[in-house]
Amino acid sequence: MDLRQLGEFGLINRIRNWMASSPSGLIQGIGDDVAVVEMGSTTLLATTDILIEDIHFERSWIDPYRLGKKALAVNISDIAAMGGVPRYYLISIGLPRNLPVSFLSAFYRGLKTVGKEFGVNLIGGDTSLSKKIVINVCLLGEGKRGAILFRSGARAGDDLFVSGTLGDAALGLRILQKKGRAGAPKGLMEKHLSPTPRIALGQAIARRQLGTAMIDISDGLLIDTTHLPEASKVGARIWEDRLPLSRLYRKWVNPYSKDPYQIALCGGEDYELLFTAPPEMREGISTLARSLRVQINRIGEIRTAREGFCIVRDGKEYPPVCLGFDHFR
Amino acid sequence: MDLRQLGEFGLINRIRNWMASSPSGLIQGIGDDVAVVEMGSTTLLATTDILIEDIHFERSWIDPYRLGKKALAVNISDIAAMGGVPRYYLISIGLPRNLPVSFLSAFYRGLKTVGKEFGVNLIGGDTSLSKKIVINVCLLGEGKRGAILFRSGARAGDDLFVSGTLGDAALGLRILQKKGRAGAPKGLMEKHLSPTPRIALGQAIARRQLGTAMIDISDGLLIDTTHLPEASKVGARIWEDRLPLSRLYRKWVNPYSKDPYQIALCGGEDYELLFTAPPEMREGISTLARSLRVQINRIGEIRTAREGFCIVRDGKEYPPVCLGFDHFR
Repeated sequence: MDLRQLGEFGLINRIRNWMASSPSGLIQGIGDDVAVVEMGSTTLLATTDILIEDIHFERSWIDPYRLGKKALAVNISDIAAMGGVPRYYLISIGLPRNLPVSFLSAFYRGLKTVGKEFGVNLIGGDTSLSKKIVINVCLLGEGKRGAILFRSGARAGDDLFVSGTLGDAALGLRILQKKGRAGAPKGLMEKHLSPTPRIALGQAIARRQLGTAMIDISDGLLIDTTHLPEASKVGARIWEDRLPLSRLYRKWVNPYSKDPYQIALCGGEDYELLFTAPPEMREGISTLARSLRVQINRIGEIRTAREGFCIVRDGKEYPPVCLGFDHFR
Repeated sequence: MDLRQLGEFGLINRIRNWMASSPSGLIQGIGDDVAVVEMGSTTLLATTDILIEDIHFERSWIDPYRLGKKALAVNISDIAAMGGVPRYYLISIGLPRNLPVSFLSAFYRGLKTVGKEFGVNLIGGDTSLSKKIVINVCLLGEGKRGAILFRSGARAGDDLFVSGTLGDAALGLRILQKKGRAGAPKGLMEKHLSPTPRIALGQAIARRQLGTAMIDISDGLLIDTTHLPEASKVGARIWEDRLPLSRLYRKWVNPYSKDPYQIALCGGEDYELLFTAPPEMREGISTLARSLRVQINRIGEIRTAREGFCIVRDGKEYPPVCLGFDHFR
């Protein structure tokens, strides 16, 4: 058997079985976006993301400054989804010999820009030769116990909320992948190239205890939504007509997908927050959305595991068809 | 200018300049093998190493079990060189689609074996598609302030010590790189394939305050020795005839190098500890070597920066010629 047959999530399950251990101090381990361990009086959060040239990005789409910004931002987004405080990061880079130093200075300028914005500092790393550019960021943060949110707290009856709009980044990527980008809307491409992690929102939701479970949307709304019910052992229903779609998305989606919801449901890299909360929190969530000037939409509800996971379209329930991106399939 | 002209250490210096920052809590940052930060009451140690197929290893030389062991061991060695306690790690892997799952189960078994031996647990990671295998380990550990050693504490007049023997791993690699390995000594190849981090020794030196500065030898004795004087702003003298060479090394070095000391001086991946200590610690260091059953040799001395760095051969001083491996040159 090879990885094509096992798939990415099959592999992660295997790794979890192979490596099973519960050392003292471990709160959350393999299989989640962020590891959580107690170290002395500190609740340490740690997350890592690898970006590989021609797999995650192509040099013809993304300039080195935005690549640096994105490499750090996607990790900060994982910490945001717990309501944690990102603090320090290490970066390993594999680089071709003929790479211009100007590429690297722009890349590190991108890292520094995002680092400054979110109070995150580079503390170490490793460099290596590589044919393709490889970037691995390992981000460390802090959380307060009782003021961090996991994937696993959702309960049947909770509302399901999402921040921002959906599908812009995935549609932007498709536009980038097509030649002849002249005239294409910068806004959508920019959502793919320069995601903004929802740190303030994530921290506020966790600190004010408005939510029960939270995750960031990196693989796609549907697949990331399934992670909440899986971890929480519940089901979920998403109302398709409540998905927040941007004006630009609505205007440009047509040539890329006949079904206008498809990309918003299945495309990845939104880096928006998806969270659950009991209905009595609706007022508090609205207030928070206004005070942070972030759009927050109630797009569904959590139900029992037996009721399963479905999409509601035109009043009818459908099983979710696309379940996002699998690297190995 | 590209990376060939700048070189690996030139790049690291640039990165240090581009990213300069001194956040509160930072004790040691960019440019060292291990980052050290204060987080709450914890002194957190963090180190990362990237391994790329056909750059750091070839599948024809190393089996996946040993590759897993080595990926973790080289990071533990960095923590050993501070006298720290390794605790948790994250691993990012890029994998080709057609990789057999049996390769991965052996690889993770290797990780687990070393993890068990040193009390280190996997807590997270990332997986991605990649043409070549890419492995990035980020290892987190703990230190006690006052009981960790840096590169920067060496003083003129200190002795220079090294654990174990030198050059075995580099000679083993050359043997592996040659076809027709049948009959070649397993011991040397094994030193390359399965390095053992000197955790107990590193911790004992730091805890008993026997040393003033310490580093592990990963790039090669000479280049890693220069890191101590650079960080400590001192010079050093190494007596070539005191370099600890194994019986196997002496027996097999001849066809690979006319100068029998060359590979021991310049070859990398020994993962032995190099440390400095004032002469009054000699007795304590001998006692420690006996109690841990580790060979420790006094191979040189620290002198003033003005006196510089030299090798003594046949009573004469020479400047160090080879200064180890630069990825980009």
